[in-house]
Amino acid sequence: MLDVQAYADARGVALARAGVRDVQMPFRLLQKDGRAQTVAARVSMTTRLAPEVKGAHMSRFIIQLAEWSRLHTLSLNFNAMLQETMMRLEAPAAALDLSFPYFIDKKAPVTDHSAPMAYRCSFHAHLNCANPDAPEFQLILGLTVPIATLCPCSKAISDYGAHNQRAEIRLLSVMQTTDNGPQTLNGAHHPGEDHPMVWIEDLVSALESCASCPVYPVLKREDEKYVTERQYDNPKFVEDVARDAILLLRDLPGVAGFALEVEALESIHGHNAWAGHEEGFSPLGLRPAFP
Amino acid sequence: MLDVQAYADARGVALARAGVRDVQMPFRLLQKDGRAQTVAARVSMTTRLAPEVKGAHMSRFIIQLAEWSRLHTLSLNFNAMLQETMMRLEAPAAALDLSFPYFIDKKAPVTDHSAPMAYRCSFHAHLNCANPDAPEFQLILGLTVPIATLCPCSKAISDYGAHNQRAEIRLLSVMQTTDNGPQTLNGAHHPGEDHPMVWIEDLVSALESCASCPVYPVLKREDEKYVTERQYDNPKFVEDVARDAILLLRDLPGVAGFALEVEALESIHGHNAWAGHEEGFSPLGLRPAFP
Amino acid sequence: MLDVQAYADARGVALARAGVRDVQMPFRLLQKDGRAQTVAARVSMTTRLAPEVKGAHMSRFIIQLAEWSRLHTLSLNFNAMLQETMMRLEAPAAALDLSFPYFIDKKAPVTDHSAPMAYRCSFHAHLNCANPDAPEFQLILGLTVPIATLCPCSKAISDYGAHNQRAEIRLLSVMQTTDNGPQTLNGAHHPGEDHPMVWIEDLVSALESCASCPVYPVLKREDEKYVTERQYDNPKFVEDVARDAILLLRDLPGVAGFALEVEALESIHGHNAWAGHEEGFSPLGLRPAFP
Amino acid sequence: MLDVQAYADARGVALARAGVRDVQMPFRLLQKDGRAQTVAARVSMTTRLAPEVKGAHMSRFIIQLAEWSRLHTLSLNFNAMLQETMMRLEAPAAALDLSFPYFIDKKAPVTDHSAPMAYRCSFHAHLNCANPDAPEFQLILGLTVPIATLCPCSKAISDYGAHNQRAEIRLLSVMQTTDNGPQTLNGAHHPGEDHPMVWIEDLVSALESCASCPVYPVLKREDEKYVTERQYDNPKFVEDVARDAILLLRDLPGVAGFALEVEALESIHGHNAWAGHEEGFSPLGLRPAFP
Repeated sequence: MLDVQAYADARGVALARAGVRDVQMPFRLLQKDGRAQTVAARVSMTTRLAPEVKGAHMSRFIIQLAEWSRLHTLSLNFNAMLQETMMRLEAPAAALDLSFPYFIDKKAPVTDHSAPMAYRCSFHAHLNCANPDAPEFQLILGLTVPIATLCPCSKAISDYGAHNQRAEIRLLSVMQTTDNGPQTLNGAHHPGEDHPMVWIEDLVSALESCASCPVYPVLKREDEKYVTERQYDNPKFVEDVARDAILLLRDLPGVAGFALEVEALESIHGHNAWAGHEEGFSPLGLRPAFP
Repeated sequence: MLDVQAYADARGVALARAGVRDVQMPFRLLQKDGRAQTVAARVSMTTRLAPEVKGAHMSRFIIQLAEWSRLHTLSLNFNAMLQETMMRLEAPAAALDLSFPYFIDKKAPVTDHSAPMAYRCSFHAHLNCANPDAPEFQLILGLTVPIATLCPCSKAISDYGAHNQRAEIRLLSVMQTTDNGPQTLNGAHHPGEDHPMVWIEDLVSALESCASCPVYPVLKREDEKYVTERQYDNPKFVEDVARDAILLLRDLPGVAGFALEVEALESIHGHNAWAGHEEGFSPLGLRPAFP
Repeated sequence: MLDVQAYADARGVALARAGVRDVQMPFRLLQKDGRAQTVAARVSMTTRLAPEVKGAHMSRFIIQLAEWSRLHTLSLNFNAMLQETMMRLEAPAAALDLSFPYFIDKKAPVTDHSAPMAYRCSFHAHLNCANPDAPEFQLILGLTVPIATLCPCSKAISDYGAHNQRAEIRLLSVMQTTDNGPQTLNGAHHPGEDHPMVWIEDLVSALESCASCPVYPVLKREDEKYVTERQYDNPKFVEDVARDAILLLRDLPGVAGFALEVEALESIHGHNAWAGHEEGFSPLGLRPAFP
Repeated sequence: MLDVQAYADARGVALARAGVRDVQMPFRLLQKDGRAQTVAARVSMTTRLAPEVKGAHMSRFIIQLAEWSRLHTLSLNFNAMLQETMMRLEAPAAALDLSFPYFIDKKAPVTDHSAPMAYRCSFHAHLNCANPDAPEFQLILGLTVPIATLCPCSKAISDYGAHNQRAEIRLLSVMQTTDNGPQTLNGAHHPGEDHPMVWIEDLVSALESCASCPVYPVLKREDEKYVTERQYDNPKFVEDVARDAILLLRDLPGVAGFALEVEALESIHGHNAWAGHEEGFSPLGLRPAFP
């Protein structure tokens, strides 16, 4: 049977990425508490296409993804996963993007009632071995955290009340990696490694501390009173939230760079207030979107 | 050339609707001020398929839509438009769904600064001539109005402040039609007709009056102070907004029935508060979605 | 602390539904093979609001959902779940909507390579005890199945080839329920019950049999040849797929009524071909959307 | 009345962008034929925020957008528009993002039946005067073109037929600008300027030439036969489409760099095939998304 993908290509054009996209697949992921969570992920998996090759063998991506879905718990092993992809596809570079809702149990601030709360998350892993002597590996973590903001201007100029609204902090965070490659995100500490751990659970808490107030899945009246007054005592523009998050991320161990945006669904407008910023954010491959 | 759509079908199954969907097309629409607005619509157009016919001639829908896009201003003439569809497709019934952003200039409450504001709207027209002696025509208008709600509970239990948020009122409104068919929505008054006019512009204002406060495209500080205090003086659950809208719609001339929902993007939660209701809402054909 | 939701309401307007929407929560669901699958669901939960009560106690929904997320495997027990909701909220009727991606392992047609494939699914349960002597319970299952269609007209008129495309069959199926209430969908057979079982896994297969060809997660070249030729040998309009599905659903044990649509992402147009139909489809409460 | 936005900020953090997002506004745009088209745009408008300023005066963006919506035809004047934004907001840099459906009349290949067809488009303009002696201006045009692809592998290995599907080419194209700033996109030729014109209409045609076949709004049977056979005669992987588009864009006058992706809604899978590439693509500010 003919293998058209393996045909020679005369155009002499290398492609940064060719592969599959919008694949849905369940994956087990390590939680901070050491247990595994199965997430329903949307996946993109690609390899660099050398100029002389006509096409990627797309079925090999799905076969590998299905095997890893069954056999592995992510996320300490994206480097190994992409090395396998490069071998299966006979390609010099490979990339993987996973996005998924990640559930974290969250307690009400006063009554301690708790419920799972979903955070949109993503991993973007890129391995480039075009130069075998200097392989490059990069892992980016994406995270969206819903929060509340209360408007400082509205509070200052009004005799009573202040408009507030749901907002989102969205982050793409370049993770520090060690020389031997394994990233350190939501993963067990490897013996002998001294690089910092970064957990989604901790990033959520850190970003929530930049808000007028976090949002919660369950709030009884005692909690609602607390949250209302906490918002009012702590007014913030989207610019304030972004600046506090920037200061926090600059000093966060394990974070080598970031892109950040804060968007508030203004309760006085039909449009949104928005602030965006980047520092040390140089994706190895094509740039990922916020989750 | 073979005409496969015209083949006989042996299964004996009539289909309620067959046609085109997700067609994008510009249409001119009559505004309340008598001028025309060109809207960028997403369109679905279908006919009933008799059991003995294999398929609809889909290109005829697009040809008619393109002609009406060029030649006509809607919306007094949906009945005529669907009569033409029935003839072109040789079908006993036809339906049309248009959804589009509709722009209305909106002034700030104190300073009078104005800007266009977009409202998601839809028309759902259905003409059934299966019984030629008793043709049925129905027009449903869909409308989504963004508003603000301020929580009565939060205000009552907190020492200061009250959580508020952007919310949406969504309406599907069955329009009264006269015996001779022409609907009366965003259209000029026909000589000799005595049925009431219903304008999108007026429906927006009516629904906004059910909110804690409307939302606006431009607010200077004087306006923001007004809006903040207005929200605080006028706390409403989604249930309150829904009930006030129901009372209003029951008495609105030109409205023969409705489905309604109110959804608030709670500023203290990651999920929404929601209320829904229907009265006298019996779509002739398949039920439309809120715009 | 004041309980504003419990205040009296003077407007005299009952609301069909008030509650929470767009809640994200993991739930365990029984598979046909007897094992449980954890799905990432979007949830709406509501109760009817009596005219004399001002508002629903929204936190009670989340508390119950979180308990059921932790403690129960769905879906034989929606009736019991809603009875509990009615008691917690002191309401005469309650409704629950869950939508989620459901993974089913799917084998390639020739090589037997398999991978998980996601199907958008939903449950819509409604319990109405307004008349305690005649409680009404209804369960609707929603399911979207991606398929391929190959155009009979294109094949008939062209010297070679035929355009084909991805399409979707979308179903809302009213499930038969027994006198004592428990529905029979993706659930174990209760001793003494003789009503038919309906499994998502079987509904997927049944609907796929109406297509020109199913779609698959993994296809090696032998499989791709099979699928290509199978499509070409089996041309179908969206109208054909809809009619075959209607005939199938009319006779499917356990299905009491249905709404159905088939939409093809035409490879020759930027818009879609579409067919829709309903039989015996009378939702007890507000009508659910296709998943 | 207090002006909280003008307060001093002690954190010392400059923000790349602060402003409004998801604003909906109609804008007139110059077509290639010299006439104006009113588009329904979603708009983001931002300025750089100096470290010593607390917040942006968000209402000023909306006021300017509303004025330009009423008074101007775009798109030769984005530089002037952003200079005005910088003055109104007293900021050293400003950016504007517009995305909208743009209608182009498109004829069937054989019968010449024509209808409007919508293309998702976007403009991303950035003006940075932080260094007054060396102002930087950049304009990026975004464009998504739906096409058809027919699989070369499927055709080669099958006895008859070949799977094909709708696909999309998505482009972000950095436009060449002259020293004095005015971009040259969908705009009249300025006297004395000798830089090339780039029209959306021409970019659409150019990208369509890279497909197995374009898609059309109206196709009669003669056209459908032509399109079916044209697809079959011209098989292309997403990699082939991407490579042909790259070769084309490298030589296109007026294009200084680009990001490109091709995504096919495979008719044999539930997921997509995808290829992506960038050359000379260095956005001045935060990177725009494909429209």
